This record gives sequence, C-alpha cells and structure tokens, in this order.
Amino acid sequence: MTNQPPRVQLLLTGNEIMSGDTVDSNSAMIAQRLATLAMSVYRKVTVGDDVALLKAELAYMTEHADLVIVNGGLGPTVDDLTAEILADVAGAPIAEHPTAVAHLEQWCAGRNLALNTANLKQAMLPAGCEIVDNPIGSAVGFALEINGCRVICTPGVPSELAAMMDIILDQLAAAQDTPVEHDILRLQTFGLGESSAQQIIADNIPDWPAGVELGFRAGAPQMEIKLTVSRSTDLPARQRCREQLESLFGEHIIGEGDTLLAERVLELLADRGQTLTTAESCTGGLIASMLTRIPGSSAGFHAGFVTYANDIKASVLGVDEATLATEGAVSEAVVRDMAKGALARSGANYAIAVSGIAGPDGGSEEKPVGTVWLAWGREDDIRTRCLCWPVERTLFQTMVAAAGLDMIRRMLLGIDSEPRYFRQRSTKAQA
Amino acid sequence: MTNQPPRVQLLLTGNEIMSGDTVDSNSAMIAQRLATLAMSVYRKVTVGDDVALLKAELAYMTEHADLVIVNGGLGPTVDDLTAEILADVAGAPIAEHPTAVAHLEQWCAGRNLALNTANLKQAMLPAGCEIVDNPIGSAVGFALEINGCRVICTPGVPSELAAMMDIILDQLAAAQDTPVEHDILRLQTFGLGESSAQQIIADNIPDWPAGVELGFRAGAPQMEIKLTVSRSTDLPARQRCREQLESLFGEHIIGEGDTLLAERVLELLADRGQTLTTAESCTGGLIASMLTRIPGSSAGFHAGFVTYANDIKASVLGVDEATLATEGAVSEAVVRDMAKGALARSGANYAIAVSGIAGPDGGSEEKPVGTVWLAWGREDDIRTRCLCWPVERTLFQTMVAAAGLDMIRRMLLGIDSEPRYFRQRSTKAQA
Repeated sequence: MTNQPPRVQLLLTGNEIMSGDTVDSNSAMIAQRLATLAMSVYRKVTVGDDVALLKAELAYMTEHADLVIVNGGLGPTVDDLTAEILADVAGAPIAEHPTAVAHLEQWCAGRNLALNTANLKQAMLPAGCEIVDNPIGSAVGFALEINGCRVICTPGVPSELAAMMDIILDQLAAAQDTPVEHDILRLQTFGLGESSAQQIIADNIPDWPAGVELGFRAGAPQMEIKLTVSRSTDLPARQRCREQLESLFGEHIIGEGDTLLAERVLELLADRGQTLTTAESCTGGLIASMLTRIPGSSAGFHAGFVTYANDIKASVLGVDEATLATEGAVSEAVVRDMAKGALARSGANYAIAVSGIAGPDGGSEEKPVGTVWLAWGREDDIRTRCLCWPVERTLFQTMVAAAGLDMIRRMLLGIDSEPRYFRQRSTKAQA
Repeated sequence: MTNQPPRVQLLLTGNEIMSGDTVDSNSAMIAQRLATLAMSVYRKVTVGDDVALLKAELAYMTEHADLVIVNGGLGPTVDDLTAEILADVAGAPIAEHPTAVAHLEQWCAGRNLALNTANLKQAMLPAGCEIVDNPIGSAVGFALEINGCRVICTPGVPSELAAMMDIILDQLAAAQDTPVEHDILRLQTFGLGESSAQQIIADNIPDWPAGVELGFRAGAPQMEIKLTVSRSTDLPARQRCREQLESLFGEHIIGEGDTLLAERVLELLADRGQTLTTAESCTGGLIASMLTRIPGSSAGFHAGFVTYANDIKASVLGVDEATLATEGAVSEAVVRDMAKGALARSGANYAIAVSGIAGPDGGSEEKPVGTVWLAWGREDDIRTRCLCWPVERTLFQTMVAAAGLDMIRRMLLGIDSEPRYFRQRSTKAQA
C-alpha cells in the first residue's frame, strides 16, 4: 500500500437489507472506522443473496478499487453465499479451512453446544485465504487478493463486525507506509436546523476557507457540524472557523466528538457534585433512559419518576389534585409541582419535569397534539415553558426529552439567553 | 408498465452516508413501501456528492432498470447535486420550475420565513420534469424518463421521504395493469436466535415447501420470521408452515406484522382491564419508555419508578435497608421488594422489577457484568429469576427490558413453561 490512501469500495449482501427488513448500519460503522486511518469509502453497492449479481459486482469492484470490504453472507444458512462468490471470482476451489474448523469447535465448546452441519458450512472457504478472527461469533472473516485488489469478507452481525474491524484496522494501519493527514473535528449541537445553520454561516462567514470542509449531519435530537482538514497547514484556519461558529452558535454547541446531551449533563453535574431527578409524563421514562444509557450515570442520577396517570402525579409526586382538575395535567402549575415533588422525594439538586400531549390522540383546540409544558431547575429556582412540537409521537418524545436535558445543561452553565427553539416552538399557551 | 414487476434500482447520494455519519434508513423505507406493490429493489448504489460518480452510476442504472429512485441531494446546499446530475444525464437544461417556486413560497409563508437564495436553488430543476409534491418540506421531488427508464428523485430527510412515498406509491399503483400477487406473513419472536431457529426448522420440517420463502431478521430485542408466497395457490402450504412454526416456537411468537413486545403486553392488559408498573434499576427507565412509546399506553401503564440508587430503592419503593446491605442491590430479595413496592405505590395489577450490573464497571467475580435479577408478577404471585447477558451496556439494557416484558406477556397468557433464554442465560447465582 502506498502513501496514497487506497480506493475503497463496500459490497453489502443480504435479502433482508434489500427488502428493507434490516436497516444497514454496518456500512456506516465500517466507514467511520476506516476514517480513523484517513481512508474513505467512495462507492457502496448492495444486492440481495443472488449469485450472479454478487459475482458481477465483485468482479467489477476488484478492477476499480484497491480495497473491497464485503459484509454479510458468512452465516450458516443456505442464503449465505460469500465464500462461494469469492472462490469463483478468485478462481480458487472451496475447501474446509482448518483454522476456521478449530474456531468453530472452540466457539461451540465454550457454549456447551454441539457443532452442527449448518455451522460447519462456515469453515468452507476459498483455498489459500487468510483467516480474520471473529472474537465473538461463529463465522470467521477471511481475506484474499483478486486482480491486485485486497478483498476482506466480514460478518453481518453488527457486534461481530465491530470486533473484527479492530483486527482489520490494525492490519491496515500496519500496512500504511506513513499515515495520511486527515483531521476531523465534530461539534454536537442541539436546537439548530441544518438549513438555517448553513444559511447563518453563509451570511456571517462569507470568506470560509477552502481548506476547511464543512459538513452537517442532522439527527434527532442532535445535529453535528463537521470540520475536516486534509493538510496540517489548514489547522489554524480551522481553529478560526471553530471560534466563529462558537460565537454564532455558542450556547447551542453541546460538545465535541460523539458527546450526547445526557452525557454532557452528567459531566456538568459530576463537576459540581450535584444530582438530577426526572418527573416524566409524556416522555414516559425516556429522559431517565437517555441518562442511564451513559456508563457511570449512577453518580449524577439516583431516581426518576414516570407519572403517566393523573392520580399517580398526585400520589407519587404530591401534585395538587385541585390543580390537576382545574388546570389539567398539561399545565404550568402541574409541571412545577411535579418538579418540586421529584426534588423532595429524591433529594436531588436539579429536576426536569414534563407533561404534554404526545398524540396521536388527546389533543384539543387549546392544547393541540405536540403541546408540552416543561419545568426545570433547583428548589429555589424552577423555570417553566410551554412549547409545541407537532411531530410523530416518538420524535416528539425524543425532542422534548432532549429539550429538558438541554435546559438543565444551560442552567448548569449559567446560560440565561433563550435557545432558538424556544422562539420557533412557542405557543399561544405560553404565559 | 407491464404485468411483470419493474426492475428497480436505488441511487443514494450524500457524503454523510458515505462517511458513516448518517445511517441510511431511507432505502429500507423505500424497499418496504415498494414491497406493498410487490415491487422489489434488486440493486442499490451509494456514492458521495461527486458529480462524475453520480452521472456514471445514474447513466448505467437507466440502461439496466425500469425504475430508478434517487434519494438525497435535493436540499438547498452546494453539495446537493441531484437536479444538475439528472439534467445532464437526460440532456435537458436546468430551469426554474414555476410549481417548485410556488411550493417554496407557500412553504416559507406558512413558517413566517423569507424565501432565501439557498432555498430558491431547490426550484432549479431539469426542464420538462414532473413535480412530486413534498407535503412537509421545502424540497419538491421530481420525475422524468431517461432511456425509457423512469427516474424519481426524492428528498433525504426521512419524514419528507415518507410523505412523498405515499404519493409515489399511488402513482405506481395506478400504473400497474393488474396487481402482482405477493403475500408476506411476518411473525415477531423474542428469545430465539436466527441460527438456532433455522437449525430447528431444518431438523423438524425437512419437507419445507418450495413455494414458501423463509426468511429471518435478527434484531434487538426481537427476531422476525418471514414467510413469503408469490402465488395464491401456495397460501394453504404457508398456513401449514405457520402452524408447524407455532408448534415448534409457539410461546416465543409475540405476534404478526410489526408487533412490538410492549405493544402486545399493553394489548393483553387492555383485554383484561389490568395495569402494569415498573421498578427499574439497571434498565433505568427503558421499560417504561418502551411502553409509553406505544400510542394509547396510558390505559395500561400509569406509573413507573426508576430507582437507580440504593437509598431511593428504600425511600421510594420501601425496599428493606438491611436486605440491601446484606444481599446487595442485585439480589432476589431486593427485586422482590422493588416489585412489591411498585405495586403498592401505583395500585397496578402487575409489576416488573429489575436490578443488575449493566457495566462496563461494577462487576465482581460472584456477580459479573451482565448479571441481572428480574421479578415479575402480581401481588399474590411474584416470580424471580437471575440471568446473565454479558453484552455491551445498551444491548444489555434492551434485552433485559424485553425479557421483563416477555415474562409479563407469558404470565398474562398463562404460559408456564420456561423460555429458551432462561436456560441459555442461567447463572450460578440462580437459586
């Protein structure tokens, strides 16, 4: 492999991907891992478990790429065709590979399973191929050279692929003469749309430097801004871009890399030795779940309350029953009481409380589907806001949960200005 | 379009997909929607926002397919190239399309936004193309014929694509002379692995009929078994296959179609007029969140408790502090007390309680990472079990949450036999 980064293509196989039964996240994983070696995938083809199609695509790829990664089709079932395709395109016979058999025997022994015929098929590989170990599953990977192109075959199960990519990356890194310069800075944001962010940048930074590639990834709930440089001489320009973005979007930037809102909130709580509790109605436990997904979350999060029914809001959190009757569950007074009750019952320093109408039913003219009251803060400083996100139920829950976490993040950082989404999502109901 | 289903290819564009920053779920959605018209995608190519690559792929596709759906690249930014590519391959000039301009004006007016230059770019389309309305977003879709192949260009934002697919499907259906027969039965299962399910079927149903295509989709937490027939004369054979699968896997089958475990549990609760509560430690609100994601969940789920810290298990759920000290939080006595406390505080008929070690830290030799105690049942019949799922934190949480829901499902259905995963996930700690 020369100093020039290899031309990489991916070949994905599986009827379940073509039919849409499975969403392919493997190719994203492969691309992100290769990016750490400054390698990028420039073309990706997906076809079903069809021998003729797979042979044609693979043959074409080996003539146009330096590295082809094949994903899927290593399993024990009849529709797993990768070994057969590879052998055919390479002109090699299929043979039982002793390393693969040994791997299968060990894998079965560790699980008290008998080695069955279906499994043994996974050891029938193109003669002369190199084995790539699978630290997790029964199917080994394998690699061979075809037409001067290196082809590496990997399993479709995501956890097995992830473990194997560690090994493949080590091998690819070892083969690189000198590492290629490539530096990616990712900034995570909440409360910014892709199109408006791009417009704001175009309006405010007309002289954006050519050496700094600007990219966006709109997700729910976060949006990522990505600044890539390919030469170290462009790093100072990137630093200036970053500072300009921070002054344009500052308080909407959560952190670098993969930082999640919940992770950032837990980090800020840990710095201050403080804790957070949740009182959730329409988000139904999602805020708690976002927090507890983060390793080590037990330091900053001790208790959460899912008070979905009105009588539970009263009995568990001490929300006033008269208020529930007069104001309704989706009201400022109720979320305020929910936050207070959660603080009192958990002993936490901070609380998030939410009550809203996730839909599809339950809306009214005054409080349409998408309406939500949020409360957040400390015992001596509980703030509230009514917003409206009239979107599909689970997206509504995701955005509302993130907004609650974001308001705690802002409060912990002492940011008092209102986020952009307050203006965009305001409702008549807001006092 | 003839009675023969069209050969369909997809062309996906976007640097964010190639880099792995975005996982492409759009192509799965397109494939699933086309399947309702018995159309299947047989080849899919993904490339970045590169003019030369896109032109080459599109030109090839129009020569080999009857229908090409292009996804992505309709946005307002400079890297949105689809209109330019299409115009070039079709040999048509780019022109401002009045329908697209009108759509943009209306879209901006509805949002109190000024029509900006970036947005107006979305109205510059290949001359002579047909507009496909975008009921949600600013970017209209468009369609044209190239080399006798119909090319339809769609937006990359998933919600906009979904709305536009409704329109495209209506048009495609109207163009079909007679609907092609194609009937898919999907069975959702929990607690079965793909490989063992396939082996069990091979061992027990050696004479599987050729007209019934068998497929699997392994997901977390559910696995889908799919039975497809292409001729109505195979429907009786499929019915026999279904009955055989039910006798092989019966109690592991949750339901048909897209049925989720939480949805099935809520349905069974509703049939009986009963309710469920949750007391979660290691799953941290995920069970509550899985339940409340389902529309109408408020009928069967009123309250959930996330008791992450030991003192909260005691103060909120009344778990005995002495037991916590002597047995530890991950113990049978504690999950039993958590379930009892949640039942008492919520007034629910059924409870799920979980306490375990999600990792990556916190394990010990006796209770390694992945160990979890589950309790489930009614006040007069609380059952418990210790299992071990030594997998990555969020997968552990997903599987444990699903197992809790599954045990309630089994109890509501009166299934007393142990699920397969009890045997596979047993630990020394199990009494």
